[in-house]
Amino acid sequence: MDRFMQAAIEEARQGLAEGGIPIGSVLVHREQILGRGHNRRVQAGSSVLHGEMDALESAGRQPAAVYRNSTLYTTLSPCAMCSGAILLYGIPRVVIGENRTFLGEEELLRARGVEVEVMQLEECIDMMKRFIEASPELWNEDIGE
Amino acid sequence: MDRFMQAAIEEARQGLAEGGIPIGSVLVHREQILGRGHNRRVQAGSSVLHGEMDALESAGRQPAAVYRNSTLYTTLSPCAMCSGAILLYGIPRVVIGENRTFLGEEELLRARGVEVEVMQLEECIDMMKRFIEASPELWNEDIGE
Repeated sequence: MDRFMQAAIEEARQGLAEGGIPIGSVLVHREQILGRGHNRRVQAGSSVLHGEMDALESAGRQPAAVYRNSTLYTTLSPCAMCSGAILLYGIPRVVIGENRTFLGEEELLRARGVEVEVMQLEECIDMMKRFIEASPELWNEDIGE
Repeated sequence: MDRFMQAAIEEARQGLAEGGIPIGSVLVHREQILGRGHNRRVQAGSSVLHGEMDALESAGRQPAAVYRNSTLYTTLSPCAMCSGAILLYGIPRVVIGENRTFLGEEELLRARGVEVEVMQLEECIDMMKRFIEASPELWNEDIGE
């Protein structure tokens, strides 16, 4: 298993342990994790801190040159907001744990030149499937449905 | 002047007074301001709290039905991240102070069915022009350039 995706999965598991939505993410620049995070809707009452946003936030303020040489790892296909953040900062590559339980804006990302790789990991699919079955209302709130 | 746009401009001015980037936003549901905010890159060292995101965050967790009957007011054309958040939550209408100093993802929003209204206010244009001239590096960082 890719060690960066492993770190994103660890973040997702931490979120689950906190009673939150199990989606994790890491921002990687030149083989180093610059920022890591997980969905904080429940823990922080946040509507904007999806896993990817939390990872970007934890990386702090960075110049464009850093983002443009970075890869964002996320356990789940990124929604419109997180995809928009990827486009804003010109992150050229996104590695996704799975897109079976939720398909985000991968097509938009690809159309804008972002390299999108989907690993389709059973571990990620299982974690989200269980969560969605257990907490459908919370999940719908998180994706605006 | 529309009172909600006036509130967004007040937020932008507050951000400027704090030494920050002068962009403000309010989320309005049934003629009431649910959330208000301004860009917090400088004040909070944040890469995700653009004005619109800060307004959404301050509105807290809301069900889809609320967003779908809301309007987002923002002093500046929304970037890819903020436009993505608008799409995620299904906010049907966005009122923009100006798009002369920065043109965000208005075309994407319209293509997805969002009603986009640009007021092109001199007050907003002047505030951004002065800010960009005084702090071009900070501005570029904020838009990932």
